Amino acid sequence: MTVNNGYLKVVPLENISLKGGLLGNKNRLVRKEVIPYLWKALNNQLPGTDPSNAIENIRIAAGEAEGEFIGMVFQDSDVAKWLEAVSYQLTTNPDQELERLADSVIALIEKAQQPDGYLNTYYIIKEPDKKWTNLAECHELYCAGHMMEAAVAYYQATGKRKLLDVMLSFADLIAEKFGTEENKINGYPGHQEIELALIKLYRITEDEKYRDLAKYFIDQRGKKPSYFKLEWEARGWTSHWPDQDKISELDYFQAHKPVQQQNAATGHAVRAMYMYSGMADLALETGDEILIQACQRLWDNVTRKKMYITGGIGSSGHLESFTVDYDLPNDTAYAETCAAIGLVFFAQRMFHLQPGAEYIDIMERALYNGVLSGISEDGQKFFYVNPLEVLPEVCENRNDHKHVKPTRQKWFGCACCPPNIARLLASIGEYIYSYNEESIYVNLYTESTVDVRIKGEDITIKQETDYPWKGKVNLKIVTNKEVEFTLVLRIPGWCRKAELEVNGGQIDISDLEDNGYIYIDKNWGNGDQVNLKISMPVEKVYSNPQIRENIGKVAIQRGPVVYCLEEADNGSNLASIYLPVDTELKPEFRDDFLGGVTTISGKAVKIDKDNWSTDLYSTENYQYRSIKITAVPYFAWNNRKNGEMLVWLNKMD
Amino acid sequence: MTVNNGYLKVVPLENISLKGGLLGNKNRLVRKEVIPYLWKALNNQLPGTDPSNAIENIRIAAGEAEGEFIGMVFQDSDVAKWLEAVSYQLTTNPDQELERLADSVIALIEKAQQPDGYLNTYYIIKEPDKKWTNLAECHELYCAGHMMEAAVAYYQATGKRKLLDVMLSFADLIAEKFGTEENKINGYPGHQEIELALIKLYRITEDEKYRDLAKYFIDQRGKKPSYFKLEWEARGWTSHWPDQDKISELDYFQAHKPVQQQNAATGHAVRAMYMYSGMADLALETGDEILIQACQRLWDNVTRKKMYITGGIGSSGHLESFTVDYDLPNDTAYAETCAAIGLVFFAQRMFHLQPGAEYIDIMERALYNGVLSGISEDGQKFFYVNPLEVLPEVCENRNDHKHVKPTRQKWFGCACCPPNIARLLASIGEYIYSYNEESIYVNLYTESTVDVRIKGEDITIKQETDYPWKGKVNLKIVTNKEVEFTLVLRIPGWCRKAELEVNGGQIDISDLEDNGYIYIDKNWGNGDQVNLKISMPVEKVYSNPQIRENIGKVAIQRGPVVYCLEEADNGSNLASIYLPVDTELKPEFRDDFLGGVTTISGKAVKIDKDNWSTDLYSTENYQYRSIKITAVPYFAWNNRKNGEMLVWLNKMD
Repeated sequence: MTVNNGYLKVVPLENISLKGGLLGNKNRLVRKEVIPYLWKALNNQLPGTDPSNAIENIRIAAGEAEGEFIGMVFQDSDVAKWLEAVSYQLTTNPDQELERLADSVIALIEKAQQPDGYLNTYYIIKEPDKKWTNLAECHELYCAGHMMEAAVAYYQATGKRKLLDVMLSFADLIAEKFGTEENKINGYPGHQEIELALIKLYRITEDEKYRDLAKYFIDQRGKKPSYFKLEWEARGWTSHWPDQDKISELDYFQAHKPVQQQNAATGHAVRAMYMYSGMADLALETGDEILIQACQRLWDNVTRKKMYITGGIGSSGHLESFTVDYDLPNDTAYAETCAAIGLVFFAQRMFHLQPGAEYIDIMERALYNGVLSGISEDGQKFFYVNPLEVLPEVCENRNDHKHVKPTRQKWFGCACCPPNIARLLASIGEYIYSYNEESIYVNLYTESTVDVRIKGEDITIKQETDYPWKGKVNLKIVTNKEVEFTLVLRIPGWCRKAELEVNGGQIDISDLEDNGYIYIDKNWGNGDQVNLKISMPVEKVYSNPQIRENIGKVAIQRGPVVYCLEEADNGSNLASIYLPVDTELKPEFRDDFLGGVTTISGKAVKIDKDNWSTDLYSTENYQYRSIKITAVPYFAWNNRKNGEMLVWLNKMD
Repeated sequence: MTVNNGYLKVVPLENISLKGGLLGNKNRLVRKEVIPYLWKALNNQLPGTDPSNAIENIRIAAGEAEGEFIGMVFQDSDVAKWLEAVSYQLTTNPDQELERLADSVIALIEKAQQPDGYLNTYYIIKEPDKKWTNLAECHELYCAGHMMEAAVAYYQATGKRKLLDVMLSFADLIAEKFGTEENKINGYPGHQEIELALIKLYRITEDEKYRDLAKYFIDQRGKKPSYFKLEWEARGWTSHWPDQDKISELDYFQAHKPVQQQNAATGHAVRAMYMYSGMADLALETGDEILIQACQRLWDNVTRKKMYITGGIGSSGHLESFTVDYDLPNDTAYAETCAAIGLVFFAQRMFHLQPGAEYIDIMERALYNGVLSGISEDGQKFFYVNPLEVLPEVCENRNDHKHVKPTRQKWFGCACCPPNIARLLASIGEYIYSYNEESIYVNLYTESTVDVRIKGEDITIKQETDYPWKGKVNLKIVTNKEVEFTLVLRIPGWCRKAELEVNGGQIDISDLEDNGYIYIDKNWGNGDQVNLKISMPVEKVYSNPQIRENIGKVAIQRGPVVYCLEEADNGSNLASIYLPVDTELKPEFRDDFLGGVTTISGKAVKIDKDNWSTDLYSTENYQYRSIKITAVPYFAWNNRKNGEMLVWLNKMD
């Protein structure tokens, strides 16, 4: 753990142990179910789904098989994300068989690599003479970035350098090919990703070339004349996706102006998140204030004008993109799982740049809602799109809802989300704590143990909690020697009342709080205990009146968890239910339900449909009848039978 | 006026005179502004619009010019509808110059006609060897139908047979080519229209061949194997619209099953309306009960499950189509002007089959709202799509709103609506009255005079009223001789209280009312007067709770006119306005405003945006402030500056 400057750092995964709790269970689910399931998918072994062919593509490129490239132009990235998820799991849970499997894939990758370092199975197999001719659409640098991330993770997990060396050699090739010089390609990726991967290479190698290459990609972006248009012209105006003219809309790629001048989130939401994360990563290395300010403006725009209550972002199915401020339709919401994952990445980096509760509040919102919703209880079905309102009949019959699947899917033709959620949950330990030279920050509350070295001493903190279902947290210090450091505890933004005890003595947190965190500076000794009690009532949440779809509506939230109604518990016609704003809503933890969740129940009213004629319109107002509703965590929806789902309920004042 | 059976009949246009009033004014607008404007459009004389080229296409086909066919495959139909509108105007308002212009067009059409009777400029110019090979997509029979309607109208208006003879000869060719026999084409039109046109030819010629050809097209439709698929295969699976696979979805064409077995409105809404109208026309000639029952089922499905409060139908921009029951989004509503026009056609025919108020209630709803909304106050700008909620920024930036124009348009690449609204409003007189051997029905209230021959006597009825702005109607009988007949007056479905006086004596209408009409059977003498007073308070209208977009909302209606809020009168953020259900709303007729309309004003509340933080979500409920709202007739919106518009307001119970 090297500390380069004053910014907060990630606690590496090897220092984290997760036991149970919601996040620990999801992490275990990835290990036990998702990684083997993804392996089947990558090897065309999922019945009833389109073949991924991702592994076979590598085999073909390596000369070990014959055949055609099948899949998306970025199919390699699915393998990279799988390897990255495997690496994180191997870090904390060694598994020789899994490691052998990964080694075999890495051996293939090494074999597929071209003598000059180039690596991309689509181009190697299909268009070997078209390399680097379509940066805008064809994801070569994106795939490279994902494989670099996998290489770093695998090296950190196993100490094995093979994949790292492969990717360093590819990175060297890219550094040779790309740059502002006349004899180089002056371009940058259509889908950002390599920027943050290069920072990882830099951190692990301390070779500034990689940081500088990341900086080149970030700084070159959006310069005029547009590289994407120049290469398009050079290609003779051909497109890889002829149905979609993306290139004439540069804001789709966040390439409409230099990143330092961007004020609003535009275009493809995942690209945006990866770019902003890369910008923040670069700033973490350079301290570039201009970049930090741009990150903050973009953060503000996303989280104050373009984010669902679930942390979902990118509301439009068309080009998977952001639209205008406050345009957050619930039924046609895209809110791609990968975009929420990207928001988690961005949030963590922003927090490390300038610690403050807002970043982790958003990170937690995205994680417990818009990310976890992407994976089923059994880890074998997924949502790519995460709407906040589903009426299956409408999804199935309306063209403008065709991206909204009312049922979790076994796989996707574009399968970016399943391995992305796997790599995030496999590395979730890294999001719990942060540290610097004299402090350890507890960002997320979840059953876990962390080892950190502060002021030369090895300290362990054991965290016990049933969060997010209960608000009690116990932290116990294990150390050989007393050490003075600051234990920094997050008070979630949704929390209105928190109580703190240190070694049994009540502490007034108002004196210790700054920007959503409480700073406990003390000589910590072995056995010291901190108890935090975060009040976690059921909350009724209202929406900014500029979000027109939510006017007159209310959502249910408890702690960081957003709730929804499902038809399975509440019958059909959920849209005709009204929640009185003064109704009492009761939480109940149910160990045996949906993998163990807290449900919320209470009285509501429903429009009495039977009282209405067969007319479409009438001067008679509705009549209502009393009903009981039961809400389940949004992330857990559609784990039973198919049916309607609704987050924003009509409110009755 | 021949009476073939017991069904009600249209009173021909030559027997109607319109003076002023809303409908009379719109009729005059068509004469003074729209017909000349359309002529410019058809001749490529509208600056800043795509050239229609429709007249030039005919000139080229006639050998009078050289050049390429330009425009839609159905471009001829725009000329046909213009000629039809011209004919209706010439019937009531002779105009030698206009008639000469029409004659010149007809002379061109005659010249363009092929020796065998064929007529379609697209095929004549562009694909002369591909005639009748793509009935599904290429509108030959549709264009033929429109030109037949024009021919009948022009003959009735002027007595000139040239266009009629041209179209009878084409109809004869079609009758030769099409049929169930093996040596004939067993197909039917992709876009219905010719069916009702052929009934018009039959009525004017009394030649059963045309009725039978209409019956063939109706009966053949939807038989298995599908003709559309067979011809598609025969063409080698080529498509005229390669981007849209329509042919594999036969319900788009209402060709998924025989029409007699259809229960639900499907597919393209205009096609559906024209087909149902053709079915009803055929039933009016044959008394076919099975067909009448099918018409009634389809009517019920449309008007009880798939119709906006404006009478707009076909909610989906994708393929301009119906979707599922109760799926009526306001902001993405398609509700094509032509579809509302088609609903007017269908309603009139259903009423003639089986008189009852529901048909004319719907006809009136469509006419005063979803149809009139399609044309601007100056007659030179149009809406093709008629949404019930518009936020310009969203329309301009969201792909799933791209069909929704927030501004009335000067012209369209597919320009079906402007000439369609012209022909309807030019013939609006035909919708006011109906008659049979012993009765005259007054369906629409508007300033007008009608001449009818009943029991051998010529009777004139003079109607004076300020409807739809006022509910008082005065009817005066002019006759040389007392005649016993039944004067049948509609009591609109929205009316809760009506008072009737005959020659000054109050009559209890409850004794006379049947199915929404009051039947006044009497020896009517010259100077007899009937005064009807229809109570017309401002109504708050609620929506069937199965229409989820309208739950918790209220619309304002007065008489048949649906109202909306515009930004011009009410500021922005219309979606944050609440209408208390007990608020008093006051009508005020304003002669100088929007061409003379009644506006409606009252107190409402608006969410106080200034009281909200910059957060997107909060546990603080809204605060409201009192405002005054002013609503304008929906049809009159966007005649001032651009801005938001909203029909369904939040209601506050």
